[in-house]
Amino acid sequence: MSLRVGIVGISGFGGGEAMRLVAGHPSFELVYAAGEGSAGSRLGDRFPGAPATLAELVIQKWDPVTLPKLDVLFASLPTGASAEALARVPKEVKIVDIGGDHRYVEGWAYGLADVWPDRIEGRTRVANPGCFPAATLTALAPLLADNLIEPGNIVIDAKTGISGAGRGGGGTFGYADSNENLVPYGLLKHVHMPEMATTIERLSGGSAAGLVFAPHLVPMTRGVLATMYCRGRATTEQCLDAARRFYAGRAFIRVTDRPPQTKWATGSNLAFVSYAADPERNLVIAMGVVDNLGKGAAGQAVQNANLICGLPETTGLEGAPVWP
Amino acid sequence: MSLRVGIVGISGFGGGEAMRLVAGHPSFELVYAAGEGSAGSRLGDRFPGAPATLAELVIQKWDPVTLPKLDVLFASLPTGASAEALARVPKEVKIVDIGGDHRYVEGWAYGLADVWPDRIEGRTRVANPGCFPAATLTALAPLLADNLIEPGNIVIDAKTGISGAGRGGGGTFGYADSNENLVPYGLLKHVHMPEMATTIERLSGGSAAGLVFAPHLVPMTRGVLATMYCRGRATTEQCLDAARRFYAGRAFIRVTDRPPQTKWATGSNLAFVSYAADPERNLVIAMGVVDNLGKGAAGQAVQNANLICGLPETTGLEGAPVWP
Amino acid sequence: MSLRVGIVGISGFGGGEAMRLVAGHPSFELVYAAGEGSAGSRLGDRFPGAPATLAELVIQKWDPVTLPKLDVLFASLPTGASAEALARVPKEVKIVDIGGDHRYVEGWAYGLADVWPDRIEGRTRVANPGCFPAATLTALAPLLADNLIEPGNIVIDAKTGISGAGRGGGGTFGYADSNENLVPYGLLKHVHMPEMATTIERLSGGSAAGLVFAPHLVPMTRGVLATMYCRGRATTEQCLDAARRFYAGRAFIRVTDRPPQTKWATGSNLAFVSYAADPERNLVIAMGVVDNLGKGAAGQAVQNANLICGLPETTGLEGAPVWP
Amino acid sequence: MSLRVGIVGISGFGGGEAMRLVAGHPSFELVYAAGEGSAGSRLGDRFPGAPATLAELVIQKWDPVTLPKLDVLFASLPTGASAEALARVPKEVKIVDIGGDHRYVEGWAYGLADVWPDRIEGRTRVANPGCFPAATLTALAPLLADNLIEPGNIVIDAKTGISGAGRGGGGTFGYADSNENLVPYGLLKHVHMPEMATTIERLSGGSAAGLVFAPHLVPMTRGVLATMYCRGRATTEQCLDAARRFYAGRAFIRVTDRPPQTKWATGSNLAFVSYAADPERNLVIAMGVVDNLGKGAAGQAVQNANLICGLPETTGLEGAPVWP
Repeated sequence: MSLRVGIVGISGFGGGEAMRLVAGHPSFELVYAAGEGSAGSRLGDRFPGAPATLAELVIQKWDPVTLPKLDVLFASLPTGASAEALARVPKEVKIVDIGGDHRYVEGWAYGLADVWPDRIEGRTRVANPGCFPAATLTALAPLLADNLIEPGNIVIDAKTGISGAGRGGGGTFGYADSNENLVPYGLLKHVHMPEMATTIERLSGGSAAGLVFAPHLVPMTRGVLATMYCRGRATTEQCLDAARRFYAGRAFIRVTDRPPQTKWATGSNLAFVSYAADPERNLVIAMGVVDNLGKGAAGQAVQNANLICGLPETTGLEGAPVWP
Repeated sequence: MSLRVGIVGISGFGGGEAMRLVAGHPSFELVYAAGEGSAGSRLGDRFPGAPATLAELVIQKWDPVTLPKLDVLFASLPTGASAEALARVPKEVKIVDIGGDHRYVEGWAYGLADVWPDRIEGRTRVANPGCFPAATLTALAPLLADNLIEPGNIVIDAKTGISGAGRGGGGTFGYADSNENLVPYGLLKHVHMPEMATTIERLSGGSAAGLVFAPHLVPMTRGVLATMYCRGRATTEQCLDAARRFYAGRAFIRVTDRPPQTKWATGSNLAFVSYAADPERNLVIAMGVVDNLGKGAAGQAVQNANLICGLPETTGLEGAPVWP
Repeated sequence: MSLRVGIVGISGFGGGEAMRLVAGHPSFELVYAAGEGSAGSRLGDRFPGAPATLAELVIQKWDPVTLPKLDVLFASLPTGASAEALARVPKEVKIVDIGGDHRYVEGWAYGLADVWPDRIEGRTRVANPGCFPAATLTALAPLLADNLIEPGNIVIDAKTGISGAGRGGGGTFGYADSNENLVPYGLLKHVHMPEMATTIERLSGGSAAGLVFAPHLVPMTRGVLATMYCRGRATTEQCLDAARRFYAGRAFIRVTDRPPQTKWATGSNLAFVSYAADPERNLVIAMGVVDNLGKGAAGQAVQNANLICGLPETTGLEGAPVWP
Repeated sequence: MSLRVGIVGISGFGGGEAMRLVAGHPSFELVYAAGEGSAGSRLGDRFPGAPATLAELVIQKWDPVTLPKLDVLFASLPTGASAEALARVPKEVKIVDIGGDHRYVEGWAYGLADVWPDRIEGRTRVANPGCFPAATLTALAPLLADNLIEPGNIVIDAKTGISGAGRGGGGTFGYADSNENLVPYGLLKHVHMPEMATTIERLSGGSAAGLVFAPHLVPMTRGVLATMYCRGRATTEQCLDAARRFYAGRAFIRVTDRPPQTKWATGSNLAFVSYAADPERNLVIAMGVVDNLGKGAAGQAVQNANLICGLPETTGLEGAPVWP
């Protein structure tokens, strides 16, 4: 039996990727799609490669009043837009909010699915982590849980592909200006910082007051790599071992000996973590890689939907990454 | 029940994509992989994102004598290498040769699966079309079958992503020399020409003597677009209509009103065809788009394997393209 | 002694490249810059790498009434905008219009500088050719002049980097949608067609009625390659020889034995032409490569300005292409 | 009067860029070029866009015995190859070694031209800094000179375009594997580390023992961005002010309020530096951008050659960056 699924924000990159994953999900049926820029057009016009069974679905203008009966709704709206948009969705519709408005908000589970699956199961409202937090926290969690690094002294140098900036930014992120260009932005004041600080504190029990976060736009479409510089006396092997234990049996986390590359994850819900430490210098480098639209958005969202619907969490997410 | 599958040429791009598709195929089990450059390593070393169930498979040096019991073997070897390599494979092993050596060779079906599926079913040896022919012939077939264009007067201007040149060409196709560069090559003498000419003749019954083929390398990883300039008096609508009838019920062909873009197909087994005609100028422009590693190689190969194994031809190939 | 130079349209790619070339020109001094999107800002804000001597120049809102005394004005405005904008510029200001409004317009020389330099010298109004015509006509001119091809039967398959679409198209040409994507557009109805047809007719004396033009967007920033399929009985060597004679002594044209690559021209005012012919098939393939912002826009514009100012035409344009 | 110039290592990216700059230099004449992979071919075959005056120069196999009379030799050889190759070059030939073998070697000046021009003038042997050190040290020097940061506690997260890995690595850095991929490598053990540590110590007078260096390959051709995390109590404005004073009157250094982007420098000898500090967190982020083939290699080399030849240091280096 299929669950009835809707997506709001289908015109954006996150919503589009949710469409792709829902289309391939054996227990989900996409029955509703809404989008600002594409309302009125067929899904097949917007996504010429969409499955034939979905091509005729007409994209709606979002209106919670006319929402059809749904089991699950994925929301992928710009920051600031989803709080209001989702307030009037009926309680019986489970929601996974890929956008940023409900992270660490009362009544919403924080959907860091590989770290805290038990906090998500049984809930009806899940706030998906941001793409940077997905890469960052997945790599840091085992170290923080084992007290291998100081929570108050973490520097995150993060790099993202340009789809991470969203489609709305077309003007700013035009091809000719962005290609062959590497751009630091949002130094020390990125919108993802509070979410990362809070999670670090919950994982470690200590303060994350010294957190430094410097994101960079990289001329590629997908992919996030976070390189984190931490204080700690662990060896590389101790860090890898902590991660292997922490993620034992977790399907989507790969702990690797060598530094992970963003392309390893493209199109998948995988996260790759690795470490390089130098105890003599009191240094641990942690690295996390995700596809910003996969584990960093729609992949993690489907995993969260699986968890709250009582499905095996890997359902519909088994696809291997696309290489090259 | 799963069929036992092997892949030879796993180090190349076509073999790697076959691995990805076989891994996600519900009736195939990958039990054997061989590769020149990667023999001795684990599949998980070569493909860090490979499914955990395959990660421990050790890549072999190719030797038909030590081949395990297989139902299907995919071969993806450089031109000139597969004829000899496959000669001693036991008859009961079905083979799909992604490489170029067996196209239009006695005893081998030519695997243009969406055009001639009935010539493939029941066979045990299939030669997969090249990536350029896959894009080109899929778009031309309906026009040739309906005599809407002259077979002897076709100009093919073809553009391919750089993975189409194979991994062996690393030295030639280094990043810094290839990026931001558009390169015509192999004018009038490309290895795919005879295969295209023969197919055009079989489809039309006429001579393809005037065929012109000009391939170009485009700075992108995947994708083929063939733009074809033909002589004919049909209208655009007549061409589209011919294609819709020709491919009625075919799962992987999309006939589109607007010119197709290569990214529509990325990661999928889809082919997109479209047309723009001007009867007053005796002109029909035909366009075909495929992912050179999908419909142009491993996707079509799996479709062919499905056909010769008596499976529904879409099995394991339902995934929507990855966008963006 | 320096000539006083102005640029209108400095916010666009063509205007920006004109700024770069004027800055390096020994006889030009940039004293005025106007731009829609950047009026009020310093040139150094817009172009952080601009020469220190220009950084403080404040970009103006275009208004011909407040124009300072100028010797030369470069205009790089969107199609449709320059006719009106330039109508009231004083007669004594020489104008090179990089935009499309004045091509083959009464009173304006058509600035195909390497083919017809003598029609440009002594003029005060020059309409710069479009980027596609620059690549196309440069390669075709010697063949047409020697009657080696039929003027009425030319197919132009043209490929351009995305800066060729202009900066205004940021929304349409966002990075994530354009990267790894090859896009045909404007089939048979591109705005550059009349200009090419007219020039072909003037060069050959015959009709260009059968002209076919199919442009494609390629995922790279700069570069145009035109591949042209023509009817003719010449050999490759005859075509090369015709071009070598036609362009003898011309500084910016390179006739090459092998097919030209777009990156050969990046950042320069060079054009590369080559040919591959097969007399038995009545076929001549002509290829032309330019940088769409160099010979295809600002480079050619500076060359034209040199011609009308009585300077050696290579002044300020000697820089070798940037590779890789 | 022109100085006679030679280049050894013309087949590599650094040697090729040196060729481009020497070709445009008013006081240099290229009379000799040597290269491993291209010996015997004409310069015009290797660089189709090379100035016509250089096209006929035949590339030699390197042999110091048959060296013609030269005033200046640029060497751009792989690490480990230049020490021996240059040992027998006559003393009267001035050498700028772009390769790594002579940095902080007895008898060779370290060519950090914008920081220590006076240590370079009058010398005959100059070791050019590596591309990472050029970006890193240019941004750090003013802070270290003013004691605004602790020298022993610097984390360098560096990102380079793929030409920084050299052309020899074609196999490793093939287009399809490198495109859309972000790759950390050489963590904590990169060959550029000692050079950076030594320079930091000389600039500060303190120990650089805690230096952390993590380089990353970014899918673009040119450009280096170093993001550095330092300990210090200065404000952003104090850092910017220190840099403006330190580099007052230096032609190639741009101190910018906003974070620099790699494309600002493409094709030029410019370096961009900026800072973002938070005294409450004892944090200074320093950023440096260079073109790895410009200020990071051939541009700096020409600047050094100007210094040792008694020419104005900007000669031949005035060209503005190529954008976009």
